[in-house]
Amino acid sequence: RAARFEGLAGLANLPAETLDGTQVGLWGNIEFPGEVAACLERGAVGVGLYRTEFLYLNSERAPTEQEQFEAYAAVVESLKGRPVTIRTLDLGADKLVAYQSAGYADANPVLGLRSLRLSLRELALFRTQLRAILRASALGDVRVMFPLVSTLGELRQARAILGDVAAELTAEGVPFRRDLPVGVMIEVPAAAVMADQMAKEVDFFSIGTNDLIQYTLAVDRTNETVADLYSAADPAVLRLIAMVVDAARARGIEVSICGTMGGEPLYTMLLLGLGVHQLSMPPHQLPEIKRVIRGVSVAEARSIAAEALHLETSQAVVALLDSALRHAL
Amino acid sequence: RAARFEGLAGLANLPAETLDGTQVGLWGNIEFPGEVAACLERGAVGVGLYRTEFLYLNSERAPTEQEQFEAYAAVVESLKGRPVTIRTLDLGADKLVAYQSAGYADANPVLGLRSLRLSLRELALFRTQLRAILRASALGDVRVMFPLVSTLGELRQARAILGDVAAELTAEGVPFRRDLPVGVMIEVPAAAVMADQMAKEVDFFSIGTNDLIQYTLAVDRTNETVADLYSAADPAVLRLIAMVVDAARARGIEVSICGTMGGEPLYTMLLLGLGVHQLSMPPHQLPEIKRVIRGVSVAEARSIAAEALHLETSQAVVALLDSALRHAL
Ligand SMILES: [Mg+2]
Ligand SMILES: [Mg+2]
Repeated sequence: RAARFEGLAGLANLPAETLDGTQVGLWGNIEFPGEVAACLERGAVGVGLYRTEFLYLNSERAPTEQEQFEAYAAVVESLKGRPVTIRTLDLGADKLVAYQSAGYADANPVLGLRSLRLSLRELALFRTQLRAILRASALGDVRVMFPLVSTLGELRQARAILGDVAAELTAEGVPFRRDLPVGVMIEVPAAAVMADQMAKEVDFFSIGTNDLIQYTLAVDRTNETVADLYSAADPAVLRLIAMVVDAARARGIEVSICGTMGGEPLYTMLLLGLGVHQLSMPPHQLPEIKRVIRGVSVAEARSIAAEALHLETSQAVVALLDSALRHAL
Repeated sequence: RAARFEGLAGLANLPAETLDGTQVGLWGNIEFPGEVAACLERGAVGVGLYRTEFLYLNSERAPTEQEQFEAYAAVVESLKGRPVTIRTLDLGADKLVAYQSAGYADANPVLGLRSLRLSLRELALFRTQLRAILRASALGDVRVMFPLVSTLGELRQARAILGDVAAELTAEGVPFRRDLPVGVMIEVPAAAVMADQMAKEVDFFSIGTNDLIQYTLAVDRTNETVADLYSAADPAVLRLIAMVVDAARARGIEVSICGTMGGEPLYTMLLLGLGVHQLSMPPHQLPEIKRVIRGVSVAEARSIAAEALHLETSQAVVALLDSALRHAL
């Protein structure tokens, strides 16, 4: 075990490259500015998912623009030119103090007012966050990503507000990145099904597998009584991921995975084989995933993925992937 | 208005046939045996959805096999040979007294232990219901349908239990319909995406649009704060319906709609155009839908459906369908 850990640690400076020479982008998911170091130590090319919820939680009031700007700037600066994808607020209304004190309660919060839906309803909150992100974008390679997009209408609304905030900053003479890349998380089945249309209007996709699995199978991932149905290996989930990747490639936009699935070695070959070449994950998982990537070829990954797409159950997919992984490593 | 109502009443004995001669099957959705008459008066070919939840609600104990048999037999007999599709229990665990008294509570009941999931967990309850349905199948044209199927594994499990119960009745010398048609409701996105595989293992599909819309868009249909996202006209929903219909036709199995969408005149042409020729709805909606069917051609319906499938938003789809309907009637 000690040898294995040394081996993993030694991987940080080696390329994330398959046996047949495909470069894979390995990114870190972070929540706090202090986690950037853990990403860089393990050789991440950047931060693929910077969650911003921590700014809003446990607070009597929403964070100010300056507080947010400082948090984003800290991450951008510690990345020293490497890219960071900042995700806009991804909280449920039930977590915000203003809604709590108004007695807001949903029968099914996971299907309710949350994430981008909440931002589009609380425009002052959303505009403040977008201003802070745009201001931080002057300091480095910043991208912005909208979570839980369900329809093209929502995407267009969010982009319009971003454009409006950008115009405001321009009028004020405040610098920001003019060509700020704008992406969406694909985590609602409707967005996956409409990925060909969405791909025309964004610069990148990031597949949020946790929610995508949850909605596709209609299973609350925290509910133990139905936990056996929740699986990243479900054939319907694989088909939707394949659909999203194909839509992204047809338009030449980047597609990454930022859900739990992206950091699980069992799925690395499958994802490579489906055409995903960007993976974002908690930093501690980077060495293990890099080790898998360096031990497999895209050619074999493709044949595994093609086989998996024809299977009928998650159990059959897991058995296939498990045997492929054992065989490869 | 009086003239219009007379017109609708007079439709009961006219065929549900399009201008270009396609016969459409119009069915009734019922909850209680007494509602069969309302279906027949309006010319329904049978009952496309017989909900059985009423037997389990407001009761301290589960219904006995005999109580269920009598309820099912009453419907079968009053249909005088016409078909009835009995849906197995479609309740959430939170509605059952046994679970309530055990303090069962879900954070998101709509994504939890409900419907077929509950039946597969409460096997005694499920077997009792299947025995009652099989016994009633000796009396007429009975079909059985499993709701909320998410995976092929669940479908196979449900069919295995049905087979086991059938063997038990055979051993007891109790008569039932040997070639009982078995169908699934397609209302979870995963089932729609896997419809080609599901179609190999069932006799028919019934698309439950209410839940399908809800899960596809990740929107609780009872939540007012996100109600604007819930729409049967959402392009992603239309694509999934098209996928299901194509899968059914490729295998030569029947596909019907039993959700609210099936009884809304706005969607009749679209559904016909997508290839749905069986619609099940609350009986009071039958005349209006028959009137639409008799006023349109499948040829124009197909061109409307093809156009709708290329639109980007539910608003654009509604505008198209609204203008097509005005033009037709
Ligand atoms: Mg999410
Ligand atoms: Mg349903």
